[in-house]
Amino acid sequence: MPKSDIEIAREATLQPIAEIGAKLDIPQDAILQYGPYKGKVSFDFIKGLADRPNGKLVLVTAITPTPAGEGKTTTSVGLGDGLNRIGKRAAVCLREPSLGPCFGMKGGAAGGGYAQVVPMEDINLHFTGDFHAIGIAHNLLAALIDNHIYWGNELGFDSRRVSWRRVMDMNDRALRSIVTSLGGTPNGFPREDGFDIVVASEIMAIFCLATDLEDLTERLGKIVVGYTRDRKPILARDLKAPGSMAVLLKDAISPNLVQTLEGNPAFIHGGPFANIAHGCNSVIATQTALKLADYVVTEAGFGADLGAEKFFDIKCRKAGLKPNAAVVVATIRALKMHGGVAKEDLGKENVEAVKKGCSNLARHLRNVKSFGVPAVVAINRFITDTDAEMEVVRQVVKELGSEAVVCSHWAEGSKGTEELAQKVVALVESGTDQFAPLYDDDMPLWDKIETIATNLYGASEVQADKSVRNRIRELQETGYGHLPICMAKTQYSFSTDPNLKGAPAHHSLTVREVRLSAGAEFVVAICGDIMTMPGLPRVPAANSIHLDSEGRIEGLF
Amino acid sequence: MPKSDIEIAREATLQPIAEIGAKLDIPQDAILQYGPYKGKVSFDFIKGLADRPNGKLVLVTAITPTPAGEGKTTTSVGLGDGLNRIGKRAAVCLREPSLGPCFGMKGGAAGGGYAQVVPMEDINLHFTGDFHAIGIAHNLLAALIDNHIYWGNELGFDSRRVSWRRVMDMNDRALRSIVTSLGGTPNGFPREDGFDIVVASEIMAIFCLATDLEDLTERLGKIVVGYTRDRKPILARDLKAPGSMAVLLKDAISPNLVQTLEGNPAFIHGGPFANIAHGCNSVIATQTALKLADYVVTEAGFGADLGAEKFFDIKCRKAGLKPNAAVVVATIRALKMHGGVAKEDLGKENVEAVKKGCSNLARHLRNVKSFGVPAVVAINRFITDTDAEMEVVRQVVKELGSEAVVCSHWAEGSKGTEELAQKVVALVESGTDQFAPLYDDDMPLWDKIETIATNLYGASEVQADKSVRNRIRELQETGYGHLPICMAKTQYSFSTDPNLKGAPAHHSLTVREVRLSAGAEFVVAICGDIMTMPGLPRVPAANSIHLDSEGRIEGLF
Repeated sequence: MPKSDIEIAREATLQPIAEIGAKLDIPQDAILQYGPYKGKVSFDFIKGLADRPNGKLVLVTAITPTPAGEGKTTTSVGLGDGLNRIGKRAAVCLREPSLGPCFGMKGGAAGGGYAQVVPMEDINLHFTGDFHAIGIAHNLLAALIDNHIYWGNELGFDSRRVSWRRVMDMNDRALRSIVTSLGGTPNGFPREDGFDIVVASEIMAIFCLATDLEDLTERLGKIVVGYTRDRKPILARDLKAPGSMAVLLKDAISPNLVQTLEGNPAFIHGGPFANIAHGCNSVIATQTALKLADYVVTEAGFGADLGAEKFFDIKCRKAGLKPNAAVVVATIRALKMHGGVAKEDLGKENVEAVKKGCSNLARHLRNVKSFGVPAVVAINRFITDTDAEMEVVRQVVKELGSEAVVCSHWAEGSKGTEELAQKVVALVESGTDQFAPLYDDDMPLWDKIETIATNLYGASEVQADKSVRNRIRELQETGYGHLPICMAKTQYSFSTDPNLKGAPAHHSLTVREVRLSAGAEFVVAICGDIMTMPGLPRVPAANSIHLDSEGRIEGLF
Repeated sequence: MPKSDIEIAREATLQPIAEIGAKLDIPQDAILQYGPYKGKVSFDFIKGLADRPNGKLVLVTAITPTPAGEGKTTTSVGLGDGLNRIGKRAAVCLREPSLGPCFGMKGGAAGGGYAQVVPMEDINLHFTGDFHAIGIAHNLLAALIDNHIYWGNELGFDSRRVSWRRVMDMNDRALRSIVTSLGGTPNGFPREDGFDIVVASEIMAIFCLATDLEDLTERLGKIVVGYTRDRKPILARDLKAPGSMAVLLKDAISPNLVQTLEGNPAFIHGGPFANIAHGCNSVIATQTALKLADYVVTEAGFGADLGAEKFFDIKCRKAGLKPNAAVVVATIRALKMHGGVAKEDLGKENVEAVKKGCSNLARHLRNVKSFGVPAVVAINRFITDTDAEMEVVRQVVKELGSEAVVCSHWAEGSKGTEELAQKVVALVESGTDQFAPLYDDDMPLWDKIETIATNLYGASEVQADKSVRNRIRELQETGYGHLPICMAKTQYSFSTDPNLKGAPAHHSLTVREVRLSAGAEFVVAICGDIMTMPGLPRVPAANSIHLDSEGRIEGLF
């Protein structure tokens, strides 16, 4: 039986974080330690890097997720290690996992096998406290809103139209929909409200898009927190909230440095939802890594239709980043599921199903390349994969003018990504990248949605109710028309129907709602049910998580 | 104009936390750093100290608080520095301040003037994340309760009798009373609920009374979270929650080490409410300090009627601590207010009022000594105090067989507490301490309440409704009769009427409610309105808190 992730992680000998920093020439006093193996890179040091040239930026994205898994984070870590193995100074940039979901389903979000970031327990729990800081900054703003209404409501909030909810880093369905301020006059004016999980906070998205503390504060001020009875927006700055919120975030904003199992540097910083937000680690972490490393490997949430698109059209556009190459991760098992195979039959060879499922991979690959970013496919090998199945993928990818490389980093670490690393370097050194976002800022909001849906999703049309269209027009006319779109749809299909695997075409995309994230600077187009506060399962992982007699965590992974 | 606290703090040159630890012979690798000036002392190191002898324990308590202030934390810090100044190896043990209230009223809780603990901004905000950890552990338990009900309610919760509320470290009156689980079947069964501030969580009290992780987990399991329809208690362990909660608290439980402005060691760890809980820093911090220092100065919340009594009867009783001396802090201004002077007239000399107000000091001093703890009075000097006023206090204290010492640590640091430190050492070295709690474990709960009220508060009787008496009898008969009492009454008077200054006598104490804190192991007797979720004022401090152009926090203090 192979070792579990936690067993492998525990066998590793971690290097002091100062030594990891030294690999990127970060001086010891520029690392604020959080215990021996975690550090925050100081902002003063980061500011001094501005004039340095950037390293190369490589995005790791994936095919449409299935229950079979594709291993995007694992591949990001494996590629980072692989690049180091072949002599490149490389760092990975990943999202911080959310604490709450750890107590629902077993399993962390720090890679797996021999391609992990460590210390994994810390990373999956409180880490350096960033999410706690974001949560409390969010809830301070919420408290200031109700406090303002309580003391006279000078700004004229319509209490039915307070759009700023509260947050908690916990899977707690009981808080999705609540009524607050009950209990009489000392407690305020009752109104409907609810909690989202912290990763769904607009502050998380702002945190990950801000370039420094000034930009962060400016963006916090632009958050629309509610409306007056005549529907005029009220902003966070009208409540004089941004200064305090920035104070709560001032330490969190420094990027976190940890290490891979092979002792290579990993920045793990910020983790917004990939549906109602853009699903990428912080711009600050990516920019810092680019100044310090020759190669920076980063990931985006969900499949390339959501993750890579938002990485390109929101993060790279806003931060002026130029990705030099992309890796599209696939597994034979996931491709089989896209080819119609049920989960219980994945262990059997099925070349035809793989071939059929490659329609999904092919569209993602074409999409990524349509942004002017050269791409390679990584087949994240599983023990049951057969040579014939892998050969089919190689052929399909070759016909699309790219290459597919089989990786075995889960089992072998960087040895298993050496070839992938070589291909990525060759691709980057070919200098063929000519990144451009999919659409221009000045394209109208509605057209942006149509462009994404038809060019990338294979949809033939976009639909929306009159009220939604009116809302889009209103945003267009009130100064928000230049913002990019953040699509919120199911991650399980190119369409809005999670059951449509492969590469569905000629479907119709219905926009059910639009939301303005004025501080994050995007307009969210919601297509389908989006859950922003998860629940716990019948038997939550919390039931079996505990400390063993040596004080080690059991049951979390 | 004298310098502000924040100006003084910023002028200080902090020593690396390893150097502070070295003063207590803590090896560098036993300190988990949180940036350069904060550290957690590792539990492995603490475990190895068990066989060492204890240092001397000195409690700093105070007269009944008034708006004029008495400076208990400042005096604790000043005394710690004074003891170091006269050549004793001393450490202070303080409570961690709560983040939420910083955004309401201006002002921190890390001492003042030249008697502060630093870095003060960090200590007052996220610090090392302990309160965030406690908050999320609390809310995990809450989520598990509603999740249990959602999935079938096997344990038979009566949803009207869920006693475990939720918490947030924020002054947010809108959350005091809410209805949760609205929105239909996917969100559960609607019920009344509410949020308290984190410091009011029973987990905070447990955290501060636990002696190690095993004891912590055991206590977490004993928390009563609700009742069945036939009023059988349901415990946290019935929900299999304690293991996960302990995992969330495993780092927080290590005591935090920082420094005073004079570079002496300060442990700041845990901070429970001083009304519905016992208001003292963690037992673990105090015990660790006692193993490492020759003198440990610690404080308790509010006046000695609440703070010192709970320190003695709850913390010392449970942890087996033997306080060797106590300091009762008073100011001339506060004594004047107890003597009937209005706040605006405090600047004028008024010897008669001081004399009259000394009735309050006298009773506190007698009370403290009744526990077998020798005591000295510290007059925390203010610039308007006159010699005649101070002489009155000296006389009153002398007649009670103790000494009063004038201190000027706010303005002068340890130079201003040198005499106090000498007196404390003399008192400790006299060996006259013979600490014993006020009552025995096996005294019935009702009699414990009467004993506290009549012996310490000057009450002539204790009253309670039949329902309250029944509840006390029920607790007595169901195995909780051996627990100590945690009195929750106004801190502004010996009586339950906050307007009765001085030393009111022959008043009646009415117990309105009793609550069981089974994990913390005390029974709370609530006498008056106790607010467990504060609100923000009309113009909250949050409006003016911000980062200046150099990234420093403005407006917080």
